[in-house]
Amino acid sequence: MDQSKTQTNLPELLVINPSPVFIIHQQQFSQKFKLLKAYESPLSTDLFLQTNAQSTKALICYGKSPVTTNILNLLPSLQLVVTASTGFNHIDLDKCRSRGIAVANTRDVFSEDTADIGVGLLIDVLRKISAGDRFVRSGNWTANIQYPLGSQLGGKHVGIVGLGNIGLKVATRLEAFGCKISYNSRQKKPVPYNFYPNVGALASNCNVLVICCILSVETRHMIDKDVLKALGKDGILINVARGPIVDEKELVNFLAEGEIAGAGLDVFENEPKVPQELYSLDNVVLTPHRAAFTEEAFSSAFQIILANLEAFFSNKPLISPV
Amino acid sequence: MDQSKTQTNLPELLVINPSPVFIIHQQQFSQKFKLLKAYESPLSTDLFLQTNAQSTKALICYGKSPVTTNILNLLPSLQLVVTASTGFNHIDLDKCRSRGIAVANTRDVFSEDTADIGVGLLIDVLRKISAGDRFVRSGNWTANIQYPLGSQLGGKHVGIVGLGNIGLKVATRLEAFGCKISYNSRQKKPVPYNFYPNVGALASNCNVLVICCILSVETRHMIDKDVLKALGKDGILINVARGPIVDEKELVNFLAEGEIAGAGLDVFENEPKVPQELYSLDNVVLTPHRAAFTEEAFSSAFQIILANLEAFFSNKPLISPV
Repeated sequence: MDQSKTQTNLPELLVINPSPVFIIHQQQFSQKFKLLKAYESPLSTDLFLQTNAQSTKALICYGKSPVTTNILNLLPSLQLVVTASTGFNHIDLDKCRSRGIAVANTRDVFSEDTADIGVGLLIDVLRKISAGDRFVRSGNWTANIQYPLGSQLGGKHVGIVGLGNIGLKVATRLEAFGCKISYNSRQKKPVPYNFYPNVGALASNCNVLVICCILSVETRHMIDKDVLKALGKDGILINVARGPIVDEKELVNFLAEGEIAGAGLDVFENEPKVPQELYSLDNVVLTPHRAAFTEEAFSSAFQIILANLEAFFSNKPLISPV
Repeated sequence: MDQSKTQTNLPELLVINPSPVFIIHQQQFSQKFKLLKAYESPLSTDLFLQTNAQSTKALICYGKSPVTTNILNLLPSLQLVVTASTGFNHIDLDKCRSRGIAVANTRDVFSEDTADIGVGLLIDVLRKISAGDRFVRSGNWTANIQYPLGSQLGGKHVGIVGLGNIGLKVATRLEAFGCKISYNSRQKKPVPYNFYPNVGALASNCNVLVICCILSVETRHMIDKDVLKALGKDGILINVARGPIVDEKELVNFLAEGEIAGAGLDVFENEPKVPQELYSLDNVVLTPHRAAFTEEAFSSAFQIILANLEAFFSNKPLISPV
């Protein structure tokens, strides 16, 4: 089969910047669509859109490839925006609505995996798994060096900050380990957990905080000096949401000074930059923003994106409109 | 208060070799008992017992400090053996029974923590938490080096080998993550999980094996070449039971050759020796036999041991006789 000939008959799909899901499934996308890759062009994005995408009807984006008013203005034929993510606040939804541009997301395919990483990081910090692995690999165990005791997960009072899809899944998992669950959220929810309208009060009453909320103007640096102080010397912070929700400079100080007991961090303020002061600490576990990164979740996301695009190009209803 | 004078009035407690729980709570024991420490004496154990322990009524032991017929024969006044463990097959129970020596254990204080380590190791292997932590600390993330996808815990078919206290707790925890549970055990149990009378068949039908059984003549090297082959290239082995249940040499070969996908190991055949071939593998997580090592479990164990000893010396019924 002549690939290049086939490509020209395929519907166009614009990719301004590629999401991890797109990168992993790029070949499959290229079999179904003629890909317009702005990021591979020597032209500026604006010029690329003006030159190559004036008749383009569909665009795929993600959190780090926002769809702004400016971009929408440069795409007069656009009828569909698909995001390779659950969240869609990187898309100018009002402008899309007013132009009649449809928007689709990947549903809730990443929340189970994100909750799993949250629980995994907590077990790891309490039970010193990564630190224990370093201890074994360094040969210290064979040298009969003593290793400190861990701390029990069962009985811990865990405060979930943001009880959405992910927060709820963290809660149900931790209940199976015998944890007591409380939460902070914009409003009280119909759940059997204690509600704290104030995150500082939640921190005061919990051994562990698990950050699961969205990043917004309200939540930026919400976990500040006061909250960390309220969490206290025996407290543990887990962040599987977004780095800037935590005042990272303060967190590093609290960890270095032993003013909180430990942290499990999948996200950071200036990724992929991680504060070097954390590298030498045994009471922190650092993962490279991998909460949603499983083969299965990426495959599910790909299937949903593809189903939306195929529905759109055959004039059928979208699978997951937002 | 004159400590030395007080000590002489305290009841005697014989310690042939100190358990981790005894070491951590040694000071508290020494406030309540006159400790006879065979392990600190220049005398051989036999000679120490013959010289210093002829009137000793109580002994504290643990798995690595067995109470054999020989030891019992050297202790004519012994009336109580307390073990700092749940298991007691290191104690010659028949001989104790025939001599009227009471035996007490620490109840089931370690099984929750052991189950937690089992789940923590599994999440870690699937989601590459320890490897991710190494990746971040090495600066590779900041250098924008790509990191592979993990594998989803939800939907995995997990086979529990040995459905006792620990195995059951691993099962209920993993159910909360959306895993499907099967098990192998000496006999079928009244549980809602698939029973496989044969561990090879269990391995063939599962993505993950979690070893939770006791070490016995029957279970030594039960996880052999055939079982690992049945587990297969995508399979993961977790061992929180005892090292010799697995043929470690075969396991190392299977891991090095990619014939199974990964392993989380808290126990090894010749602890604290760990096969050096494992040190360079990113798909294994190695912890230094820490499954039961939390402050809370050790404190609970100490309280139960103390309660048994105090009951014995005041002629009250033991708290946890076996």
